[in-house]
Amino acid sequence: MSGSDPSYLVFPVERLMEFSQRTFEHFGVPQADARLAAEVLARSDLRGIDSHGVARLHTYFDMLQLGRINPRPHIKIIRQSPSTATVDGDNGLGLVVGPRANEIAMDKAAQVGTGWVSVCNSNHFGIAGYYVLEALRRDLIGWAMTNSTKLVAPLWGGERLLGTNPIAIAFPGLKEPPIVIDLATSACAYGKVEMAKRKSQPVPRGWIIDAAGNPSENPQDMIDGGALLPLGSFREMGGHKGYCLAAMVDILCCVLSGANWGPFAPPFALRQEIPSRSVGRGIGHFFGAMSIEAFIDPLEFKSQIDQWIAVFRQTKPQPGSPGVLIPGDPEREAEAVRSVEGIPLVLPVVEELRDISRQTGIPL
Amino acid sequence: MSGSDPSYLVFPVERLMEFSQRTFEHFGVPQADARLAAEVLARSDLRGIDSHGVARLHTYFDMLQLGRINPRPHIKIIRQSPSTATVDGDNGLGLVVGPRANEIAMDKAAQVGTGWVSVCNSNHFGIAGYYVLEALRRDLIGWAMTNSTKLVAPLWGGERLLGTNPIAIAFPGLKEPPIVIDLATSACAYGKVEMAKRKSQPVPRGWIIDAAGNPSENPQDMIDGGALLPLGSFREMGGHKGYCLAAMVDILCCVLSGANWGPFAPPFALRQEIPSRSVGRGIGHFFGAMSIEAFIDPLEFKSQIDQWIAVFRQTKPQPGSPGVLIPGDPEREAEAVRSVEGIPLVLPVVEELRDISRQTGIPL
Repeated sequence: MSGSDPSYLVFPVERLMEFSQRTFEHFGVPQADARLAAEVLARSDLRGIDSHGVARLHTYFDMLQLGRINPRPHIKIIRQSPSTATVDGDNGLGLVVGPRANEIAMDKAAQVGTGWVSVCNSNHFGIAGYYVLEALRRDLIGWAMTNSTKLVAPLWGGERLLGTNPIAIAFPGLKEPPIVIDLATSACAYGKVEMAKRKSQPVPRGWIIDAAGNPSENPQDMIDGGALLPLGSFREMGGHKGYCLAAMVDILCCVLSGANWGPFAPPFALRQEIPSRSVGRGIGHFFGAMSIEAFIDPLEFKSQIDQWIAVFRQTKPQPGSPGVLIPGDPEREAEAVRSVEGIPLVLPVVEELRDISRQTGIPL
Repeated sequence: MSGSDPSYLVFPVERLMEFSQRTFEHFGVPQADARLAAEVLARSDLRGIDSHGVARLHTYFDMLQLGRINPRPHIKIIRQSPSTATVDGDNGLGLVVGPRANEIAMDKAAQVGTGWVSVCNSNHFGIAGYYVLEALRRDLIGWAMTNSTKLVAPLWGGERLLGTNPIAIAFPGLKEPPIVIDLATSACAYGKVEMAKRKSQPVPRGWIIDAAGNPSENPQDMIDGGALLPLGSFREMGGHKGYCLAAMVDILCCVLSGANWGPFAPPFALRQEIPSRSVGRGIGHFFGAMSIEAFIDPLEFKSQIDQWIAVFRQTKPQPGSPGVLIPGDPEREAEAVRSVEGIPLVLPVVEELRDISRQTGIPL
């Protein structure tokens, strides 16, 4: 992770953010939107979620270049009630549609205690954790979910039908840092399968199935038309639960908003096939915001969260393990390091950024 | 499961319901509350969740007899906003406090689009699925969660700190039956460990740890001071995700309401130790209700749910598996059989009911 490791190059986060912003602007994304989108990506890189930061910039670049994403969307509320809204993202960048919809949820929470926004006609929105961190800035409990391109088989299914459909939620502490939960509902991330393939290593039984639907330990089997398994993997270990959670996310994000659910989510990367059928518009997200004082004295809540954290930190550790972490610890620690030392990018990602630079003339 | 199997006795559900109701009334629970509590238990038996139905009646009996549960609680809203409420259950039966709090959530959904109710000072509320089925009766999307006595270790922890903390949510179909999700956030149910012990069988690696915190396949190791593992089991298989989900439930149910979170949840069964420390009142629940029409035309929603179900039913099956189920299928099928054929009770449960009958004079 340092500048002397030849497999990485380290960039100050500000430089990457400026590069991302100018890349978005290159396609006519308005300056404020481009800045916002760049911030969402940078937050991912800062927090150590390398797969969702500038490593994805070339995909956004491709989608904008092909006109598959609308650089100047008219994002609008198509239905609402005092505590809810349905938002049509007009096929804009998810990195812009997501934050706007999340703001609507937060505004409603300030007015009537909670706000819940389902979003259709959007695109990849970055890390779910970004949105719940934004809610914390307004002293709210934030929720975020999204569907994504099919990668995961439902329990007992032999093919991809669901995305990795993450769930994020965050709770503020008083003196302690917040509890920040952000998890995909699959047994593992697709990136881990790709990494095992690059290293020619097997993957644990329970991560993937092959194209025939059989469990496999060969990462190539998943890539060649197999699927990820849901959290819990097999029936005996609770694979039905991961499937249920992914289904819940799919329905809240897509059926409730009018987006493409299940296997019909449009692809994000160019190499992915376009589904033969459309059942809605774009992909979908779901945001929630809850005012703490609508339930309990916020000071009391935060002081109990501090105690919760203290008790969980003091758990007797499992032998041979690092001991219990608080959700959000690893990402916060990454952010503390990277905001000072910069963002390490693997060379293939640097090469992708250089390609954007060559095509657009924006200096890296 | 038939009357001719000597290890079971079959009872009509009405008879069990009447017996439960009269048992609650025996302790001064008002008739309507006793009826409601009996209905919640019966719904569990009908749906095949044997562990949460009349099999638990003797525990409620014990708790009422010892004065640990208040038979005539004054359930009250202690804080509210248009879309939220915090309810103090006054140490009543969770089977009564839960339905009342859930109604408040549903009423608020009718008024402002959604309703969210966090509950403290309650007790065991039966199956989470009961509450979301009630929401369906009012054409709402229902959510239910509860904490429970500590049984589960957080990832990398060597001791019990969390309950099996279930999450339930349900979505109505148009012609299809609803999608009903109800899952514990542990890798397996405690009842499965007990059953393996009775049969002197090992349990799968990943279900439990022993008292020292090491993975074990001997069910007795968990019972003797070990713990269940969270959904996902180990780090590599996503055990941090099950831990995060259990933490989310714990905080929404308890920290947000002022109930006892984490390891401080009071015990339900008499044999369980009482925590040395109290950090709130009773155990906690969290209910949500969402008006569909606050987001989208309900007919459109339900017709898409029907299509969702059709697509998932048609998934290519995993070889050797029964193929993909829709969440709620097994419980609905059990209900169809049991509402006609009756509820099969294992003999130890029948013996417990007979014991109640002997002590109270209520005929079984």
